[in-house]
Amino acid sequence: MGDIMSDFTNGFGDDLGRALVAPKSIALIGVSGDATKLSARPLQFCQQHGFAGKIFIVNPRRDLVLGIKAYPSVSAIPEKVDHAYILLGTELVEAALDDCIAAGVRIVSVLADGFAEAGSQGQARQARLVAKATAAKIMLIGPNSMGVVNTNNGFICTTNAAFKVDKLPRGRLAVLSHSGSLIGTLVSRGQARNIGFAALVSLGNEAQSCVGRLGLTLVEDDNIDGFVLFLETMRNPQIFAEFAAAATRLGKPVVAYMLGKSADGQALSVSHTGAMTGEAAAVRAFLAQHSVAEVHQFDALFEAPALLMKKPRLGLRPRRATVVTTTGGGGAMLVDQLSLRGVKLAGLSPASRAFFRSQNIPSGTGKLVDVTLAGAQYDIMKKAITQLINDPETGIVVVAIGSSAQFHPELAVKPIIDAVAENPKAAPVAAFPLPVAVKSIMMLEAAGIPCFGSVESCADSIGLLLCDDAGSDLDDGDQSHQIGMKADDHLPLRQQLDTIIEETEIGASGGLLNEVDGYQLFTALGIEGPRQLFLPARDFKAGVTKNSAKSAAIAAVAVAEAGLDFPLVAKLVSADLPHKSDYGAVVLSIESEAALEAAITEMQRVVKIHAPTATIDGILVQEMALGLGEALVGLRHDNLVGPVITVGAGGIFAEIYQDVSIRPAPVSLATAHRMIAEVKGFATLRGYRGKPKGDLDALALLITNLSRLADVDRIAEAEINPVLVRSEGVLMLDALIRIGPRDSVDGANI
Amino acid sequence: MGDIMSDFTNGFGDDLGRALVAPKSIALIGVSGDATKLSARPLQFCQQHGFAGKIFIVNPRRDLVLGIKAYPSVSAIPEKVDHAYILLGTELVEAALDDCIAAGVRIVSVLADGFAEAGSQGQARQARLVAKATAAKIMLIGPNSMGVVNTNNGFICTTNAAFKVDKLPRGRLAVLSHSGSLIGTLVSRGQARNIGFAALVSLGNEAQSCVGRLGLTLVEDDNIDGFVLFLETMRNPQIFAEFAAAATRLGKPVVAYMLGKSADGQALSVSHTGAMTGEAAAVRAFLAQHSVAEVHQFDALFEAPALLMKKPRLGLRPRRATVVTTTGGGGAMLVDQLSLRGVKLAGLSPASRAFFRSQNIPSGTGKLVDVTLAGAQYDIMKKAITQLINDPETGIVVVAIGSSAQFHPELAVKPIIDAVAENPKAAPVAAFPLPVAVKSIMMLEAAGIPCFGSVESCADSIGLLLCDDAGSDLDDGDQSHQIGMKADDHLPLRQQLDTIIEETEIGASGGLLNEVDGYQLFTALGIEGPRQLFLPARDFKAGVTKNSAKSAAIAAVAVAEAGLDFPLVAKLVSADLPHKSDYGAVVLSIESEAALEAAITEMQRVVKIHAPTATIDGILVQEMALGLGEALVGLRHDNLVGPVITVGAGGIFAEIYQDVSIRPAPVSLATAHRMIAEVKGFATLRGYRGKPKGDLDALALLITNLSRLADVDRIAEAEINPVLVRSEGVLMLDALIRIGPRDSVDGANI
Repeated sequence: MGDIMSDFTNGFGDDLGRALVAPKSIALIGVSGDATKLSARPLQFCQQHGFAGKIFIVNPRRDLVLGIKAYPSVSAIPEKVDHAYILLGTELVEAALDDCIAAGVRIVSVLADGFAEAGSQGQARQARLVAKATAAKIMLIGPNSMGVVNTNNGFICTTNAAFKVDKLPRGRLAVLSHSGSLIGTLVSRGQARNIGFAALVSLGNEAQSCVGRLGLTLVEDDNIDGFVLFLETMRNPQIFAEFAAAATRLGKPVVAYMLGKSADGQALSVSHTGAMTGEAAAVRAFLAQHSVAEVHQFDALFEAPALLMKKPRLGLRPRRATVVTTTGGGGAMLVDQLSLRGVKLAGLSPASRAFFRSQNIPSGTGKLVDVTLAGAQYDIMKKAITQLINDPETGIVVVAIGSSAQFHPELAVKPIIDAVAENPKAAPVAAFPLPVAVKSIMMLEAAGIPCFGSVESCADSIGLLLCDDAGSDLDDGDQSHQIGMKADDHLPLRQQLDTIIEETEIGASGGLLNEVDGYQLFTALGIEGPRQLFLPARDFKAGVTKNSAKSAAIAAVAVAEAGLDFPLVAKLVSADLPHKSDYGAVVLSIESEAALEAAITEMQRVVKIHAPTATIDGILVQEMALGLGEALVGLRHDNLVGPVITVGAGGIFAEIYQDVSIRPAPVSLATAHRMIAEVKGFATLRGYRGKPKGDLDALALLITNLSRLADVDRIAEAEINPVLVRSEGVLMLDALIRIGPRDSVDGANI
Repeated sequence: MGDIMSDFTNGFGDDLGRALVAPKSIALIGVSGDATKLSARPLQFCQQHGFAGKIFIVNPRRDLVLGIKAYPSVSAIPEKVDHAYILLGTELVEAALDDCIAAGVRIVSVLADGFAEAGSQGQARQARLVAKATAAKIMLIGPNSMGVVNTNNGFICTTNAAFKVDKLPRGRLAVLSHSGSLIGTLVSRGQARNIGFAALVSLGNEAQSCVGRLGLTLVEDDNIDGFVLFLETMRNPQIFAEFAAAATRLGKPVVAYMLGKSADGQALSVSHTGAMTGEAAAVRAFLAQHSVAEVHQFDALFEAPALLMKKPRLGLRPRRATVVTTTGGGGAMLVDQLSLRGVKLAGLSPASRAFFRSQNIPSGTGKLVDVTLAGAQYDIMKKAITQLINDPETGIVVVAIGSSAQFHPELAVKPIIDAVAENPKAAPVAAFPLPVAVKSIMMLEAAGIPCFGSVESCADSIGLLLCDDAGSDLDDGDQSHQIGMKADDHLPLRQQLDTIIEETEIGASGGLLNEVDGYQLFTALGIEGPRQLFLPARDFKAGVTKNSAKSAAIAAVAVAEAGLDFPLVAKLVSADLPHKSDYGAVVLSIESEAALEAAITEMQRVVKIHAPTATIDGILVQEMALGLGEALVGLRHDNLVGPVITVGAGGIFAEIYQDVSIRPAPVSLATAHRMIAEVKGFATLRGYRGKPKGDLDALALLITNLSRLADVDRIAEAEINPVLVRSEGVLMLDALIRIGPRDSVDGANI
C-alpha cells in the first residue's frame, strides 16, 4: 500500500473538509421505508435538525421512501453528490461503491460490518473496497461507521440514536472515534456539562481513511478549535503524527482517551473493530511524543480541551498550580488529586502573602489558599484572584468553589469572571465547583474560564496542561540522529550498516546476527564493548568443534599475543545460541591461560551435548569488566506505532516492576536523559544513599546511538543487555540483533 | 485520657442516637438577629424543612431573635433540652458549655474554630471543653463542626449553605465527615444522582466524639442502611474498629474517601482541622482490615453503598463480573476499567453460550457479552439477563447501556428490572448507563438495581464488592497470636518477653537493645538466627577494648571450642552502633581462626577511631549463612492507627519501588501469606524463571511471630533486616529493637 499512500500525500483535495462536514448534497443509499429502522435515522436526523443541503435517497426498489423521491442509483441523481452514506447490508456495499465511483462522489461512508473483523473473507472484501475507493480518489469512511455529524449546519448523517435529542448543543470541538456508539455518550455527557461538538466522525474500521487523515482533513476548519479522540488502536502512526503536528502548529489541542489500558481491554480492542493489539505503553509514548494529551478520566476527554487552549496564556510562567478555595475540604481534595498526578503546587508567594495580609484576606496555611473564613464576598474574591493572576510566580490559578457556586454565583463566581476579564494577559484560571452548579458553570464558561464537573477530571486536565512538556520530545530540535532522513552526513553511516549486514552470513530471510557481527554493528554506531579478541572457527586448523583441546591451546596463545588482561570472559559465538549461558557457552572470571584453555574445552564439550546442531562461528574472548550497575537498552518494532526504544535497569527488576521507559525511536540525547530519569531502578546509579554515581551521560549517548537503528531497514530488533554502567563510561556486554527479511513492506493504510 | 475512655465503653446511653438526630428539643445558642448571618442558618433550615421538635433560641442580649422568643441561657429554658448547638465565637464557647452542663443537655455541637488547630492556647482550650463535657457525660461534637442533619424529620441543624435547597432528597445513608463543607458537596452531587442521605454529621476537630463514636451511636438506627465517611485523619482506631465491626455485623456497608493520598494532601490535613499526619498506607491497611471500603473516585462515595449492600446476594458465587453491553465501545471501556482494578471478568459460560446460541442472541467474542447487534429489544435483553443471573458461574452482572438508556428505557432498562424482579435469589445486577439518563437511573434504582454515573465510579465500586475479601483479614478466626489478650496460654510468653526487657540494661527511658538482647527476644518468639557465640566483654580479663589483640585470641579459642563452622561473621555488639557496617564493626566471610583474630582486632581498632564513646558489650560470632534471597520485616507504632507490620523484599528495591505490604499488627498466618503475595520483589523467591523457590511458609511464620510484639507494652520498634530466605527455613541476620519509655500512655480520644 506504500504506493497508494504517496498519491494522497497532499490529502484528497482542498475542499475535502467541506465535502466531509458541510456537503452541498448527500446521497443516502439504502434508506428503509420503515421509519423505525436504523437506516432511516440519518434522513430523520438531517430533517429534524434542519440540514440545508440537498438530500437524495437511493433505493432501487421504490419510487418514494418516507415520502421522498427515491433514485434507483447515485448515478441516476441529476446533480453531482458530495457525500454518500451506504446503509446497505455487507453484501451490497461493493456494488453501491461502484455506483458512487461512477457518479463521481467525493466521500463515501459505509455503515455495514462484516469486513476486516470478519475473518479472511471479510478482509478480502475490505481490501477490494479500499482499492476501488483509493483508485477513484474517493475518501472512504468505515466500514462499520455510524456516520458523520456537523452540529453547526444540521448535517446529522448518522445512525446513532443519541441525535434524537430535541436540541443539539453546538460547540467547537471535533470528535474522531473508533467506536460509533461512544459518540452518543460524548454528546449526552457533554450536553450535561454544557459542552457541544462541531463535527463528529465514527471511524469504524478506518479501512482507508484513518484518524490522522480525518484529523488532517478537519484541522484547518475555522469552526474547530480542538480535537477529541476515542481510540481503540493506532493504524497509521505516520499520518497521525502529521495530523498531531498540524494541530500543534495551529494551537488546536488534541485530547485522547485510549482503550486497552488493561490486558483485557487490549484483547477486546481486537474483537471490537478488528484492531490489532499493540503494547499499550508504546502507543502511550507515541501519543505523548506527539503532544497528544491522553486523559485517564473519561469526562476529561471533553473537559480538558478548553483548558489546554489556555496554554499560550501560561507563556513563560512556572509550570505549577495555585489552588484557591472557598471550601477547606474541597480544596484539600483537589490539592491531593493534583499532587497525586505530579502537579507542583504553589502556596502564596511572599508578595501575594503580603498583599493578602494587607487586605485582611484569610489564606489558610500551606499550599492551599483557603479564603473560606472570609465567607462568600465579591470584593475579597476579586482582590484575591486579581492579585494571584498578576503575580509572576503564579502558573495557573484553580478555584475550588463550595456551596456558594450553587446558591450565590454573584458572590463566588462573578468576581472570578470580572478579575479575568479585567486582566486579559494575566495567568490562566480554571474552576471546579464542588456542588452541581449549572448556572455557575455556564457563567464561567461563557467568560472563557474552563470548568470541571469532577475533581478527578479537573486534576487530570491540569496535570496535562502543566506536565505535558516532559512527555513531548519533539521540541528538542536535535533530530540529526535520524539516519539518512535529514542529515546527509549520516548517509555513509547508514550505508556502512547496510554493508555490515550484507557481509554477514544472514540471508534474504533474515535471522539473528552472531555476537561478533552484532558488536561490529553497534561499534559502527559508536558503542563500545570491552577489549576483546575473536577467534574464528576457520582459523583453527582442525576447527574448534573437531579437536577442542587443540583449538583451546591455540586460542590461549592468540589471546596472550593480543595482550588482553586477565580476568577474561570466554564465549562461544553462534547465532544459534542467543541465550548462551543456558547452554554453558559462557565462562566468567578466567584468571590464567590454563584456565582459559580449560574453559574453551569445557564449553565446546557441553554445547556439543546440549546443542549438537548449533553452528559455532568461533570463540570470543573479552576482558572481564566490573561496573557500578547494569542497564538494558532495546529497540523493537511495535505493531502499531513502529520502532520504539526501551530502557530499563539491568537484572530482573525491570521486568518484575515493569520499570522501563519507552519512546518512539530514534531519540535525541535530551530524550535519552529523560528516559533514564524515568527509570526508578537507576536510583542506585544516581548516587542513592551515598553510593558512587554511574556515568549516565554515557548511557544516554549509547541510547541515542542505538536508537538510530530505527531508520535502518533490515533491523528488526536490537538489544544490549546488559550495558555495564561504570563511574566513567559504559560498556556493552552482550549484543543481540535480529535482521528482518529483505524487502519487507509495511501494510499501513492512509 | 485512658480513664475517661473507660467511662464511655458503653457509649453515652441507649437513646443517644435519638437525641443526636431526632431530638425532641434543640437549643440554638448565639443565633444572630441578622438573618443573613451564618448563625441564623440552623434556625432557618429547621423552619424551612419542617422540623417538628421544639426550637429554643438562646441570646442573653435580646428578647426576640428573628421573631422568636430568646432565652438568656439554656438553663433558663423551662424544659429539658436534648441537643444544643453553640454558634458563638471561640471565647464564649466554654461558658456556653457550662450553661449546657447546668441545664442537663445531652449533646452539644460547637461551631467555632480556634481550638486544637490554633496552637497551644487553642489546644488547652479544647482540652478544657473535653474534660468538662466528658465529666458531665455530654456528647461533644466538634468544635469546628458545621452541625448535624437528619433529612427524615427536618432536623437541619447546620450552618452549611447547601441545605438552602428547596427540596432535600431523603435517603438511607449516614454521612460522617471531617470536613463540614464537603457535606454540602455530597448533598448536591448525591441529589443530581437521585441519592439522598438520612443523617449527616460534621465532625470538626472530633475533640471528644470521634467518627467511630458517632458511627456506634447511629449504627443500629433502622433508618440507616450504610455509612459514607469523608476522612482527613484517624483519631481513635480502637473505637473506629468497634464501629466498623458493628456495621459489618449488621450488614451495613461503610464506604470511605480518605484525604491525604499524596504528600501534599497529607500536609494539608494537618493544617485543615488540626489532624495529625500518619502514613497514608497504614491508614489504608487499617481501613481494609476492618472491611471499610475505601473509594478513590469521589462519586463512588455515594454510589458504592447501594452496590455493597448486595454482597449477601453474591453468596458463594465466584468473585467475578460479567459485563453485558448494548454499546461495544462503552462495554469495552468498562471492561478495561474493571480489569485495571484487578476485577476478574467472565465471558459466557458454556451453558450460557449454548443458551445464547439457541435463542439467537448475539454475544460478541471474548470477555464482553456484547448484545449490540440485537438492537434494543425487550425480549432479548430479558432472556439474556435472566440466563446470566441464574447461571451458577456468574458472580455479578454489570450492564453497560448505550443510547437506549436515554431514549428507550422501556426496551433497554425495563427488561433488566423485570428479570431481576422475577429472580429474587439470583446473582446481583448493577447498571452503568453511558449517557446521562435520569429516567433510566430512577427506574433502576427504584427496582433496587445499583447504578453508576461514571465508568470510573462503577469500576471502583465493583472492585470493592468483589475484591475486598483479600483486604480484610479479620475473618481468619486465628487470633491466637495476640499475646495475652485472649489466649491465656500466651501469658507466660508475654511475661517472658517483659522479663527479657527488664533484664537488659535498658532503663526507664528506653532505647535500642543491643543485638544479642534483640536476638534473645526474637528467639523467645520462635524466630531462629544462625548458630552463634556471644563473647561478653566482661569475660575477657582485660576487656575487649583495652587489649584488643589479646581479646581477639581469646575469642578465637572460644569459637573453636564452641565448634562453629567457617566461614564466620564477626560483629561488635553495642547498642550505640545500630548501623554497624558504617563503623566497620562487621566482618564477613571469615575463613580461619587467624582471620577471626585479625578481624576482631581490626574492628576494635576502627571503632575506637570512629566511635570512641560507644560502649562495646562484646563480640558476636555467627556462622555465615547463604540463602536464595532476603526479606525485611518490621513492626512500628503508627501515629494514627497504632502497631503496623511491614514486609518487603531485601535490598534497596523495597524502598526504591515502595514495594512493601503493610497491615495492622498482630497478623495471622493467613494474613502473613497474603502480605508476602503482595510483595512483587518476592517473585525471585516464588520460582521466577525457573529459579529455586524460597521457603515462604517459614517467612510467613516469622512475620506472624514478630507481629506478636505489637501487644508487648514497651516495644516501640522491632525489625529484622535482613531475614535470609533459604530453600528450607529462614534465618534472622540482624535484630533491631527499640524499647519505649516505661509507663508511656496513649492520648486517644473517645
